[in-house]
Amino acid sequence: MKKRIFTLTATSILLLSVAASHAQAPPGSQPAPSNARYAEYPAISPDDRVTFQLSAPLAQKVQVIPGEDEKGNGLGKGPFDMVKDNKGVWWVTVGPVTPGFHYYKFLVDGALVADPATQNYFAFDGGASGVEVPAAGLDFYLPKNVPHGDVRIHWFYSKVTETWLRVHIYLPPGYDSNTKTRYPVVYLRHEGSEDDSAWVFQGKLNFIMDNLIAEKKAKPMIVVMDNDHVYNPKEPKIKNERPNKPMAPPNRYKEEMITDLVPMIDATYRTIADRNHRAIAGMANGGGEALLIAFDPKDDLFSYAGAFSCGYCTTAVQGPATVTTIFDGIWKDPATFNKNFHLFYLSAGTLEMHHKFIPELHDKLTAIGVKSVYHEVGGAGGTHEWLNAREAFRDFAPRLFQ
Amino acid sequence: MKKRIFTLTATSILLLSVAASHAQAPPGSQPAPSNARYAEYPAISPDDRVTFQLSAPLAQKVQVIPGEDEKGNGLGKGPFDMVKDNKGVWWVTVGPVTPGFHYYKFLVDGALVADPATQNYFAFDGGASGVEVPAAGLDFYLPKNVPHGDVRIHWFYSKVTETWLRVHIYLPPGYDSNTKTRYPVVYLRHEGSEDDSAWVFQGKLNFIMDNLIAEKKAKPMIVVMDNDHVYNPKEPKIKNERPNKPMAPPNRYKEEMITDLVPMIDATYRTIADRNHRAIAGMANGGGEALLIAFDPKDDLFSYAGAFSCGYCTTAVQGPATVTTIFDGIWKDPATFNKNFHLFYLSAGTLEMHHKFIPELHDKLTAIGVKSVYHEVGGAGGTHEWLNAREAFRDFAPRLFQ
Repeated sequence: MKKRIFTLTATSILLLSVAASHAQAPPGSQPAPSNARYAEYPAISPDDRVTFQLSAPLAQKVQVIPGEDEKGNGLGKGPFDMVKDNKGVWWVTVGPVTPGFHYYKFLVDGALVADPATQNYFAFDGGASGVEVPAAGLDFYLPKNVPHGDVRIHWFYSKVTETWLRVHIYLPPGYDSNTKTRYPVVYLRHEGSEDDSAWVFQGKLNFIMDNLIAEKKAKPMIVVMDNDHVYNPKEPKIKNERPNKPMAPPNRYKEEMITDLVPMIDATYRTIADRNHRAIAGMANGGGEALLIAFDPKDDLFSYAGAFSCGYCTTAVQGPATVTTIFDGIWKDPATFNKNFHLFYLSAGTLEMHHKFIPELHDKLTAIGVKSVYHEVGGAGGTHEWLNAREAFRDFAPRLFQ
Repeated sequence: MKKRIFTLTATSILLLSVAASHAQAPPGSQPAPSNARYAEYPAISPDDRVTFQLSAPLAQKVQVIPGEDEKGNGLGKGPFDMVKDNKGVWWVTVGPVTPGFHYYKFLVDGALVADPATQNYFAFDGGASGVEVPAAGLDFYLPKNVPHGDVRIHWFYSKVTETWLRVHIYLPPGYDSNTKTRYPVVYLRHEGSEDDSAWVFQGKLNFIMDNLIAEKKAKPMIVVMDNDHVYNPKEPKIKNERPNKPMAPPNRYKEEMITDLVPMIDATYRTIADRNHRAIAGMANGGGEALLIAFDPKDDLFSYAGAFSCGYCTTAVQGPATVTTIFDGIWKDPATFNKNFHLFYLSAGTLEMHHKFIPELHDKLTAIGVKSVYHEVGGAGGTHEWLNAREAFRDFAPRLFQ
C-alpha cells in the first residue's frame, strides 16, 4: 500500500547513510526537533554538541557553513570540515553550541546547499536548513495545552507591485467564535533575508502568543507578518545593495504596506482600525523598517513601535546619524513623540555586534526626554538569532494595548 | 539600511553565479514562476526548455535528477549531466519538457540536495525543489481577481500519536462574514512522500477552489489537508517498507484521522458534521488511503470518496486483489455501496504507469453494478505529477454536495 510513486532515480545513493554507524555522534544524541520526519541527523547530544551528516561519496571536501550570528556564536564560527567515512558519508560534531535556532548550509565541493534532512526554512533568499537546539528551562515558544489561534495564509493583489502577495496572519483563540469582537493588530517584520513565513516557522510566534494569552499576560491581538521583498517587476531593474542579487527592482515595502496591506487587513479582519490599536515591530533589518514606517508623520498609522536587534538604529549613536537627525529628526521634539507613541521599544542580545549601542541609544534618548523601553536579551537568547527575536517578542507583546 | 546580518561565510561562493553568462539559456528564457525571489534559474524558454544552473567550482560531477513521474515524462528521464563553465558554474538545458510542476534535485559529487534557487517544497521526506512550467491555456489554478478563501495552519494535540500535529485547512470566501453558515468538508490526502502543505503549495488547492466557487461551479466548502506520516514516537520502531527510512514506528494515519482529526475539525470549524456533507479524496498513495478510510463500515464518516491516480486501486484489476476482495469486499454488495456513496470517483492521467487499469476498474465495477465515475486527465496533466492532481480536483470538487 505504501507505494513510493515519485521516485528519485538516485535514491539508492541515500541508502548508504543508513548503514553508517551511530558511533559518529556522542552517546545519547537525539534527532533535533527541527529535523524532517525520519531524519536522524542533525543529532544533539546531552551536552549540546551537534552532529551533522551528509552522504556525498564522490566529494572532495564537505563543510558545514553556519548561518552564524555576527560574532560566531550560535553553532560557532565555522566553516566546519566534515570527514568522510568508508561508506562515503561525511560527518562532523561541533560544540557544545549555544541553544536556540541556528541556520546552516553544507558546502559540497563549492556548492552551497541546504541540508535536505531538516524542515524547510526560507532564508538567504531561498531554501535553507536549520537546527533547533532545545534551551533548558525555556518553553514559552513551545505548543502547550492551551487554546490555540490559527495562522492564516492570505493572498492579496497589490496595486503598488501589480503582483499577488502572500502574508501570514495570526488570529487569536476565540476569533472564530467571538464574532463581534474586534482586535488590535501588530505588524511584525522579518529579518532581511527571510520572508513572511519566518516569524511562524523560525519564530514560533503563534505558540508564543497562545501561551501569553492563556496566561493573561498579553491581550488577544492579531499579528500580521508580511514579506518586505516586494517590488513591481515592471519597473526597471537596478543594482541592489545585496551584492549577489543585482537584478531586483526598487523595493516598495513601505508604499505597499501603507497603500495595500494595512487597508486590506482592516477590510478583511475584525481589527480596531485606528492608530491607538496598531503596533509595528521587527527583527534586525525588519526593526529598522518598522521604525521608518512608524515614524513617518505623513502616515501616522501606529502608536506602538518596536525594533529588536536593530542595526540601523545604532547609526544614531555610532554615526553617521545622530539622535536628532535619524528618522527625519523625529526626536527633536520629545514632547510630541512621547504623546504620539504609547510605546517605543528597543531590545538587543548581549552577544550581538551592536549590543552596546542599543542601550547607549536608550540612554541618549532618555537624556533628551524621549521615552523608550530597553530590554536586554541575555543567556542563550543573546546571539543574533531567532531565540533572541522570540524572547524580544515575548517581552514586547504584553506591553501592547494595555 | 538593507543590512544583511545573518551572513553565510561562504556567500562569496554564490557570487560566481552572477558573473556567468546568460548565453547558456535559450533566447527568451525567463525565470520559472516557482523560483525563489531574485533567482534567474531555473529558466524556461518559449519552447519549454528548462535551463538549470548551480555553482560548484570544485565538483567533479553534477547532475539534475528529475523527481520523475513513473514513465520519465515531466522533465524527462534523467539524470541530466551538467557541464561546468570556466567560472565553476554548472549548466544544463533539458527539454522541451511537459508543462506542469516538476520536482528535481541536484546530485553534486554524490550528494542529493535541493536547488536553493526554488521555493521550498516538502517532498521525498524533506526539503525539495521544483520547477513550474506554465501550461498554455490553463489558468484554473492561478490567482484571479475573485474572492479568496484563507488557508489556515492549525496545530492540535493528537491522543493517538501523543504529539502535536499540523494541518492545513482551506476556508472558503465568506467564512468570516457569514458567521451562521455551516459548510461541508472535503478531507484531502497528499502523495506519499509529501506532507500537509503539499496540496497548497504544489497543488494550488486554494486558488482552484476560489476560482470554482467564483464561477459557481463548486459549492463553498472546507478542505482539510492533513499529513499521513503520523506515528506515536513512544511505540517501538519497526522496519518500514520505505527502505531508506527504517526507523519509523507504525503509521497511525487512519486511527488518528478518525479519533483526533475529524472530531477536532467538527468542534473547531462551522462544518455540517454528518456523512452526507463529508468527502474524502487523495492523490496516488493518498488516494488509496482515502478509500481505505471511506470504505471502512465501522467508521461510516464519508459519503463521497475519490482516488486520483491510485496505484493501490489497480490491484483489484491487475492483482493480487479482485473487485470483490479489495476493501474488505465492499463491492460484493453493489446496492448497499451505491446507496451509501453519493459519489465514488476515480481519475488517471493518460501518461501514468497504471493508466489503463483505472478505466478497467471502472468498467469492471460498472459490469457488477457498482456506480463509479472515471475521469481521464490528458494533455500536460497526463503525467504522474501535480498538474494531474490539480486537474483531478478541479473536476472532482464540482461533483460534491450538489
